[in-house]
Parts: sequence; C-alpha cells; structure tokens
Amino acid sequence: MSSLRVGIIGAGRIGQLHAKNILQSSSVELRAISDVFLDGVKGSSLEKEVAYLTTDYKDLIKDPEIDAVLICSPTDTHVDIIVEAAAAGKHIFCEKPISFSIDETKRALQAVAKANVKFQVGFNRRFDKNFRKVSDTVRAGQIGDPHIIRVTSRDPEAPPASYIQRSGGMFMDMTIHDFDMIRYLSNKNVVEVYVKAANLVDPVIGECGDVDTAIITLTFEDGSLAVIDNSRKAVYGYDQRVEVFGNNGAVSANNERLSSVEISTDQSVLLDKPKNFFLDRYEDAYVDELNSFVEAILGNKEVECTGEDGFQAEILAHAARKSWEEKRAVVVSELVEEVVG
Amino acid sequence: MSSLRVGIIGAGRIGQLHAKNILQSSSVELRAISDVFLDGVKGSSLEKEVAYLTTDYKDLIKDPEIDAVLICSPTDTHVDIIVEAAAAGKHIFCEKPISFSIDETKRALQAVAKANVKFQVGFNRRFDKNFRKVSDTVRAGQIGDPHIIRVTSRDPEAPPASYIQRSGGMFMDMTIHDFDMIRYLSNKNVVEVYVKAANLVDPVIGECGDVDTAIITLTFEDGSLAVIDNSRKAVYGYDQRVEVFGNNGAVSANNERLSSVEISTDQSVLLDKPKNFFLDRYEDAYVDELNSFVEAILGNKEVECTGEDGFQAEILAHAARKSWEEKRAVVVSELVEEVVG
Amino acid sequence: MSSLRVGIIGAGRIGQLHAKNILQSSSVELRAISDVFLDGVKGSSLEKEVAYLTTDYKDLIKDPEIDAVLICSPTDTHVDIIVEAAAAGKHIFCEKPISFSIDETKRALQAVAKANVKFQVGFNRRFDKNFRKVSDTVRAGQIGDPHIIRVTSRDPEAPPASYIQRSGGMFMDMTIHDFDMIRYLSNKNVVEVYVKAANLVDPVIGECGDVDTAIITLTFEDGSLAVIDNSRKAVYGYDQRVEVFGNNGAVSANNERLSSVEISTDQSVLLDKPKNFFLDRYEDAYVDELNSFVEAILGNKEVECTGEDGFQAEILAHAARKSWEEKRAVVVSELVEEVVG
Amino acid sequence: MSSLRVGIIGAGRIGQLHAKNILQSSSVELRAISDVFLDGVKGSSLEKEVAYLTTDYKDLIKDPEIDAVLICSPTDTHVDIIVEAAAAGKHIFCEKPISFSIDETKRALQAVAKANVKFQVGFNRRFDKNFRKVSDTVRAGQIGDPHIIRVTSRDPEAPPASYIQRSGGMFMDMTIHDFDMIRYLSNKNVVEVYVKAANLVDPVIGECGDVDTAIITLTFEDGSLAVIDNSRKAVYGYDQRVEVFGNNGAVSANNERLSSVEISTDQSVLLDKPKNFFLDRYEDAYVDELNSFVEAILGNKEVECTGEDGFQAEILAHAARKSWEEKRAVVVSELVEEVVG
Repeated sequence: MSSLRVGIIGAGRIGQLHAKNILQSSSVELRAISDVFLDGVKGSSLEKEVAYLTTDYKDLIKDPEIDAVLICSPTDTHVDIIVEAAAAGKHIFCEKPISFSIDETKRALQAVAKANVKFQVGFNRRFDKNFRKVSDTVRAGQIGDPHIIRVTSRDPEAPPASYIQRSGGMFMDMTIHDFDMIRYLSNKNVVEVYVKAANLVDPVIGECGDVDTAIITLTFEDGSLAVIDNSRKAVYGYDQRVEVFGNNGAVSANNERLSSVEISTDQSVLLDKPKNFFLDRYEDAYVDELNSFVEAILGNKEVECTGEDGFQAEILAHAARKSWEEKRAVVVSELVEEVVG
Repeated sequence: MSSLRVGIIGAGRIGQLHAKNILQSSSVELRAISDVFLDGVKGSSLEKEVAYLTTDYKDLIKDPEIDAVLICSPTDTHVDIIVEAAAAGKHIFCEKPISFSIDETKRALQAVAKANVKFQVGFNRRFDKNFRKVSDTVRAGQIGDPHIIRVTSRDPEAPPASYIQRSGGMFMDMTIHDFDMIRYLSNKNVVEVYVKAANLVDPVIGECGDVDTAIITLTFEDGSLAVIDNSRKAVYGYDQRVEVFGNNGAVSANNERLSSVEISTDQSVLLDKPKNFFLDRYEDAYVDELNSFVEAILGNKEVECTGEDGFQAEILAHAARKSWEEKRAVVVSELVEEVVG
Repeated sequence: MSSLRVGIIGAGRIGQLHAKNILQSSSVELRAISDVFLDGVKGSSLEKEVAYLTTDYKDLIKDPEIDAVLICSPTDTHVDIIVEAAAAGKHIFCEKPISFSIDETKRALQAVAKANVKFQVGFNRRFDKNFRKVSDTVRAGQIGDPHIIRVTSRDPEAPPASYIQRSGGMFMDMTIHDFDMIRYLSNKNVVEVYVKAANLVDPVIGECGDVDTAIITLTFEDGSLAVIDNSRKAVYGYDQRVEVFGNNGAVSANNERLSSVEISTDQSVLLDKPKNFFLDRYEDAYVDELNSFVEAILGNKEVECTGEDGFQAEILAHAARKSWEEKRAVVVSELVEEVVG
Repeated sequence: MSSLRVGIIGAGRIGQLHAKNILQSSSVELRAISDVFLDGVKGSSLEKEVAYLTTDYKDLIKDPEIDAVLICSPTDTHVDIIVEAAAAGKHIFCEKPISFSIDETKRALQAVAKANVKFQVGFNRRFDKNFRKVSDTVRAGQIGDPHIIRVTSRDPEAPPASYIQRSGGMFMDMTIHDFDMIRYLSNKNVVEVYVKAANLVDPVIGECGDVDTAIITLTFEDGSLAVIDNSRKAVYGYDQRVEVFGNNGAVSANNERLSSVEISTDQSVLLDKPKNFFLDRYEDAYVDELNSFVEAILGNKEVECTGEDGFQAEILAHAARKSWEEKRAVVVSELVEEVVG
C-alpha cells in the first residue's frame, strides 16, 4: 500500500477538519464521507474531492477500496461502528471518547483485538509539540522522578445545554483529555481519584446535572500525585498548561499566545491573550496525530495513542464522576477488576 | 509615643532578622533582646545597639520602657509568653504558628482580647508586593468572583530530621503560610479540607511521621475551590506562585528570579533560577510586616494580620493533618464548634 | 474569474514553497511551472498537480489560461520577465529584490504601470501576524508618534561564498527586508542612511567584498530615527525582532520559540530557542502574502506590498552600500532625483 | 583602620542617598556632611547621625578623622575639591561626571595619581546585579567574542530646562552611563563615534541647545560595533536594557518590573511596568558601589570603577557632542592624542 485510502464517518466539525488535513497529505487519500445529514458537505469543496458521499456508514465499511475509517460521529454510535469496521478488517481512528460505558468500550476493544486492526483514539494533545516536548523531557529523565503533575485545563466558554446533555458530562467530555495527558506524561498507573467540583459558571449546567469547575486529585501506584483544575469558562482564552515536577527539576508547557507582541503604555505592559479556538491552538497536533495513524498502518508500527489509552482515560472519567457523586475518593480498581496497564 | 520601643524574645535567625530591620527603622527602637542562649548575640554588632541582653524574657515583659515584644522563640513557648505579655499590657508580634494546639491558641487570643493589646502574627508573605498586588486585584473585582485559587509552594530543600520532629509537621510548619495566603486572597471561609500526601523526597521525613509532598484541596463556603501543592524539595529554588482564577479573568504572581538576564546559546535560552533563600525572597516583606505592626500601634489602626488569622490558619493545618491521617475530607467545623470569620 | 490561474517561473526553494501554498488554496489554481533546470520538479508530486512543466518561461507568458505569474527565478532575470509578462497582461508577483539596479527596477515598474497589471513584491514579513500587529498598533496611534524604530535581524548562519557573490551583498539580500519593515512600520519617508559595517563572522565574506555585521542608522523626513542591526550568524537561531518607540509608549514583536516549554534545573531555567528556519518561522506569512496577492486581483483591490515598496527598499539598500563604501552618511535623494512616496 | 570614616560633600538627593547607605553599613562611619545650603539636612534625622554639618567642604578635607570623601556636589565644583582632597590624602568617591572638560578631568586625575589615593567614579549601574551578570557572562567567554553591543536607555521623563542648561547636555548627563556600560561590557577601546540625534520630546530641550532622542553608533578597535539608543521620555518607565551579541551566542539584561504579577482579562494579558524611579531601580547597586569603594580602601584593592573609566566615558560624551554638532563620525583620538586604556 503506497497511499492509505480513508473514509470519514461523521461530517461534523471534527470530521471536516480531518478531511481537510487528509486532503493536504500525500500519503493519504480521502475516498468517501458518510453522515446521516449531508447538508454540511453537499455542494462544498469537500464533495468534489471525494469519490462519493453517503448517508450510510456501512457503505464505507463494505468498500474494498477503503483501508481505514475515521469515526467522528456522535459518541453513542461509536461502538457499533467500531465492531463492524473491525470485522471488515478496516483500521480505525476513533474520536474520544470511545463510549460512555466501560462495558461498551470493552466490547469495542475486544472486536479490534480479535480483528487485529490498528486502532487509535483521538487524543490530539499528545501530538502537540509543547506537550510532546514535556513528555520527552520527563522520559529522558531530565527532571528525575515525577512527584507532582499539574494540569490546568479551561475552555473559553461553556457549551450550550443541549451539548452538555449529550456529551456525557464535563469529566467525560473535557477532563478526559487531561486524564490522558496525565497518563501520557507520567507513564504511570493511576490508582485513586478524588474530585471536588462545583457549578459556578452557569446554573444551566447544574440543571443538566453537570459541573463546570473542578479540582481532581489523582494518586499513582508509587504514591506520587497529580492534580487537574478545570473550568468551562476562562474569559481570556483557551488555558491549557501542564507541569511535571520531579525530584530533579520541573518542566512545564505554557499557553501559546495569539502573537509575540508586547505593548508598553503609561499604565501597563500588554501581551496578547492565549489562542482561544481549539482548531487554531491544536492545528498542527491534528495533522500530526493523523500522520501518526497513517504511519502506524503503512509502516506497521505501534499506534501512539491506543484503544487501551482511550479505555484508561474513560475509566478515570467514570471514577471522577463516581467520586463527585458519592463525595469520596474512588479506588480505580472499584471500576475494573483488573487494571490493564 | 513617637517611637515604639521593642523587645525581641528569641535571638535565632528570625529574631535577628527582625532586629536588623528595627535598627534600620526610625520609628522603632530596639531596647532589649532575650534568649535562653545568648551566644549567637553576645559580642555581635547587635549587642552594641541594645540597652541590654538577657536570658530571661520576663525582664522584657516587666520593662516599663518596652511597649511591644516580638516573640521569635520556639513555638512551644509562645502561648505562655503571650499571656504574660498581654497581662503586662505589651503589644505583641508573634511568629507563626501561635501554638501547635487549638486550645492553647485560643487561650493566647483570649488573653490578648482581654488585655486589649495589638496582636499580629508573622505571616510575612501577605506583605510581599507581588502577593499584595494579587490580593488588591481580586478585591478590586478585576477578575470577578474567584472560582479556583491555586498556590504552589515548594522549598529548595527539606529541613533536617531534628527540625521536622519539633516543627509540628509539614502542614503546621510549611503549608500554614499557604492556608493563610488562601484566606488572604479569597477573603472567604474555608469549610472543608482534603489532603493527599506522600513521603517522596526523603525517607527520614516519613520516619519522623511526616510528609514532604502534598496536594490539598479546600472548599469555600460558597462552593468555590482552592488547591495547594507542596514539596519540601525543589532543586531549582524557592517556588512560590499563586493564581486566582475568577469568572472574569485570572491574576497570578510568579517567582522572582535571581536576575533578569537571558543567555541564548546554540542549545537553549537560559534564564536565571528563582531566588532560593527565604531571607532574600522576602526581604522587603519582612520590613513591611514590621512597619505595619508599628503603624497599627502608633496610629492605633487595625492590625493587618491578626490573631484570628493565625488561629484560622492553624485550624486548617490541623484539618489537613486529620484528613491525611484519616484519609478523608474533613469539615472544618469538626475542629471548632464555631468558626469565627 | 472565480479562481486565479497562476504560473510559477523558477522552481527553486521559494518557487516550490509558493507552489505548495497554491495547491492548498481553493481560490488559486497552479497551471504550470517553468525552470531552466527541471530536475528538482520532474517526478515529484508537484509534476502531477500541474498542467505542464517547461524550461521556457515564455510558455507561461504566452499561455492564455494563465492570469498571473510568480517570478521566483534568479534576480538577474526578473526585469526582462516582468516587462514581457506585463506586456502580455499578466498580473505579477515578484520575489525580492526586483533587480540589483535602480534603473532596471524603474524599467520594470514603468512596464507594469503601462500595462496596468497588479504587481506585488515578496516582502513576506509584512504578512507575519506579529509584525502586522505591531504595524496596526502604531497606525492606531496607541504608542503616539514614533521616535525610534529598532529592527534586529540576524540569520542562523551565513550563506556560502557562491551565494554571497551573486546575491548583491548583505544590504541587498538580507537588510532589504528590514528596510521594507521600517517603511512598513513607520509609514514615513527615509531621507538619510548611515552604515557602520564589518566582516566579523567569516573572512570568506570579506573576500567576496561583502560584510556580515552592520549597524544602520536611518533618519526620517520628520527627524525621527531608526536603527537596524544585522548579523549573518546567530548561533541560537533566526533572530528577528522589531520595536517601535513613540512619545506615548512602545510596541515590540519578539521571536517565536520552537515551543513554550520551560525546564527548571538546579543550574538554570531553560527555554526553547527561536525558530531557526525561515520556512518554519514565516510559514503563515507566505500563505497570507499569496492570499493577499490573489485577493488584490480577484477583488480588484490595492496590492499591499507594491512595486514602489520594492523600489524604495532597493534605494535604501543602494544607499547603505554607498554609505559603507564611502564611509559617510548618504542622503537618499542622491540616488534618485525624485523620491516617490 | 577597622571602620572607614567618611565625609559627604553635597547634601542633595544623591548625597543623602549615599548617607543613608553609609548609616546602614557597619564598616563605614558617616562623620560629617557639607553643603552650601544645609536646609535640606538641618533638623533631619541625618543631622543626629553625624558629628557635624558645615557649609564649608574644606572642614571635611582638613578633618584628620575623615579618611574619605564622597563628592556629590554640582559638577562644576568637582575638580577643585578633588585636587584639595587628594592633596590632603583623602580617598575620593566622585559622582559622574568628574567635569565637563577633558583638561579639567585630567587635572583632577593627575592630582589623584600624585597623591596615590583611591579614586572611584559613581557609575553605579556597573554594580547592578543584572548588568554585572551580563558582564561576567561575556568575560567568561560564554557568548564568544562580542560583535554587537546594544544599549537602550530611556528615562521616564525629561528634566526641567534649568537642569538641562547646567547638566552638560544629554550625552554628558545621561548617555555617559551608557558609554561606561559599553566599555564595561566589552572590555574594548572605542575608536569612533557617530551620532544621529533629534529634539522630539520637548521643544524646550532644543531651545536649550540640547537633544532628547539619539542613536549613537560606536566602533571598537577590532572593528566590532555597539549602538546606544536614548530618549528622555519613556511613558512606561525607566527603560534600561543591554544586549551583548557574539559569535557564540547572546546575553541580555531586561528591565525589572514593579511586580511579577500577570492579569488575564477578556482583552489582554497585563504585566507590570518597569520600575520608574532610579532610586528604586538601582537601590542595591548604590549600596554595592559604596561597599566596593570601602573594600578597595580597607582591603587595599583595586577600585572597580576608576578615574580612567570616568575619563574615558567623558571623552566619548565629548566625541558624541562633536559628532552631532559637526554631523560626522568622530575618531576618538581627535579629542585626546593618547588613548589611555
């Protein structure tokens, strides 16, 4: 196979982003796109680039000229599609989360393992050059053994109630990236989760049974610690910072600003705010995660962000939810008998 | 009274620092110093500056030419001295903590209230220009209502075992500054404390029954949150940063570097490390806290950092200890029936 | 015209960059590429994207299905091609400099004016978001009237002797960007140039009759000042900073780092170096300058970086050379009787 | 001599600052202060600290209990006082400049040499920890051989016309610090000076025959370069930055901010401005320069900032003035037949 032939299931914002990136890549070919509603794609420049559009994802799964599918459809459709795609021998890239249910995610991963296809979960931030460099620095031993990992993760503004209701809640929709980041940076197993959370940004979120502000403390197998702070509303932009503090130093990644400009006035010195749109902030990361997926297939290499990574992050999201609801620390093994590392 | 006449009880490092600052102030006069062991002071330039040295603090308390005492002796001597000094009508500045026991601290504060003397606790970081500016920014409403307060507080290296054993443990000795900082910045009451802690830096600390690494989550009356991360060993220096994140922005104070110099090489860009000695980092804060004490007395104004502030910070330290030992969240009112705000 | 049809003359590094950007744009179509030597393009993915390749640029100029040409060939070929392309009614984007001779550049601009085609010079840095924001800040009056403009411009390493010999020298090849930047930021006319320069980086450069280090002072019509410092070798990367200082403040743009990562060790705090490859540093600027050219044609708008801008920057390069050779300040009007602003 | 006994000649702002620093030092004793007008000192706390005040500086020079004098009187009085003090065997610290005349400064230095007393010029910025670290970095060879040194030096606001008229002009009053800094950082001899200057801040300054904005290019013996940019008015504060760029890297010192606080709003990120009062910005430098003087005497060591340093900086100030007036580069040896390094 010299060029990977891909189909995209789900033509929403993320699906269209992946489509655009595929079209600019010479090692991947976008063959088809499926979506229940094709209005967003019909008549667009995307339509001209693909062999066909369809409202039925099964067309892509049956298509012998498609090697891999990108699943970008609503979460509640993921698992069935994964099972079918795996059975059809398609390699699979699936947006997070795999599912809202531990058992369903297990079902999906079992199908993937049985079919022996490549499976990658869309935790794009692992591919961001800043977080990648933090991870490399830690793995190279430059800061010694991690003692405390801190992740700050705040969105510019909260999503609407309709989204809150179907997104699985803040821990599954937003913090799940941070759970993965913490696993990625530490390379350790989390054994316990404790959540303090609140509904401070918008009462509508609380009415949906969700939270918008949280401090999440995680304990690793070796007793070292991590803490995540989340908010659904940071007026100054997208705030995503990490720090790994070890016994021999510390390494952190800061926000990328909209520009490097500095203005000095008689009042103050002004710097630009952080980038405030995730498509802007992670532009390169989305490209790199796709390239990584393609290389794993074409070069028959290990996928960098696996189904297991997806599963583990989801477990932590469930543990966080449980901790918040029951107002206690939750030992991860309560959720799964066996923690597969 | 045009100039305040002061006696220092306890001629250790902190006592000598306060002495030096008094000598450089024109509104305060250092009359006498007491310490059980006077070796560190006898024959020094300090000896020439004072009217007398003594091994008996009661000499200072009886001295009609002393208006105020600075209590810089070991913690276990504080309360008795406070009670006697108050009874003698002396204004009192006491280094933190007031005592290791809630009841004992209450006893001291009752004596102070009865005698109606000024009483200030030595939480010097409140007087640091950076933290002061953060506090002013919050109080001015510039960032809206605080949702998350974060404090990072790491020492360059752990103290020896002998110190660990008599210091009351990390929460009482080190985190207590952070408990006070969080009260100072939020101007809110803490209702709950949850601690995850570990002994990662040096086994000797664990053998002393103490911890050296911690993540402490605090919940305020209004449901907003705060988190402190501590470590007894940051190889790069004294790391003390705060951030207050609100619904209308965020304000943070960063470390002060040893210099503003930047070196660019073919490998990297190097900046100077943070200041690594507390006497250097808080040089001006120590001067300002003393001036504040003196002004409160000479100008008959409110003390900026009161006995109540000391008491509340100690309660949080006790709550933290309890949370760690019992592995659960501790509601602050478990420790005191009535939380005096 | 819904999509602009473009031909690229000169398939070297810059030509191929423009080609790649055109291919990713939906409003431009790359029809053909010409180069005396097609080895670098034949068999590449570029070949498949275009209608044809040719060794004769006249094929592009005669081609009725080409609306505009991008001239990316060696400088000494620019003017003849411009004259022919203009005569054929093609819009023209020309890489800097237009020519090494004031008269030749005039000849080119006269042909363009006569044919009334759009003409843009490739001063890509004007389109960099950081420099653009500096310019917007100045034009909005935020820093008052500019008094001093400073430009630092240093390359990671010097080009080889063969390049030095045919590039027109440092002022024409490298500083010319800074002359344009200074005109762009100030929106004022330069009346005088004074150069101090030296050969400090590599003797070979001096043997070529060129310099590698310079301080260039410029005086504007209104008496305000500007200074450029150049070096052909900055070991830490591509160093391109500007500052506009006015009577009401200052605005500056700093380097973009390779990442936002910060590592704290017991020795130092390390930040990443500036980006060190011009294709990386100005990736977006190259895209934006192309879009600007296309929009000027399709929307019949003013070109943002005109032939006059190219001409003026070249005059300053010549003035700089003269100042260095004759060791005196050079009044710009010595080179042209009439300064067209 | 265990403690140095000092007299201060000139009780203006700088004299009083030195007085305050002496009083806080244990190795120096302030014996007396002289000033033509003693109103600023009589009745102040300073009066109580000294043995006597006098309107006649000769009292200090005749006083056998004074070992050294600090000359902080108006510049036009310096040389006569130096000659007399040297003849009386007093060590001398003299504020800059020594005089407004090359011949007069020579006369003063000859007297000092003949009397073999210690002589230090008040270029306090050499003692600033940031500039000191830049200098140390250069001398350690960390950035290779300096190619370009840049100094930015801008005051928060211009002095009144009365001051302008008696201060010797901007080059002698303000830039002279930068001339010394450049000599200090490079450790090389300047051979040529070229000035472009203007009167842009306040017409009154021009009416006094002075400038307020300048770009000054200096050439060293080895052909390497330096550039200073000055302005009498930076609305955002005291702007004093240096950069030494060499063939193996670069080192720079940036401004010290009023605090380390950062505020993020929906508009911008705000940092504090640079310190805006020279007594604040150079507080420690003034202490260190005094200690250096005292140590040179008590320890019989080399003075760190010598009369020769003062002389050389003044020569450059004269060369700058000449360059501006005659609108040409000035070779330093035009002003002195022999450049003493």
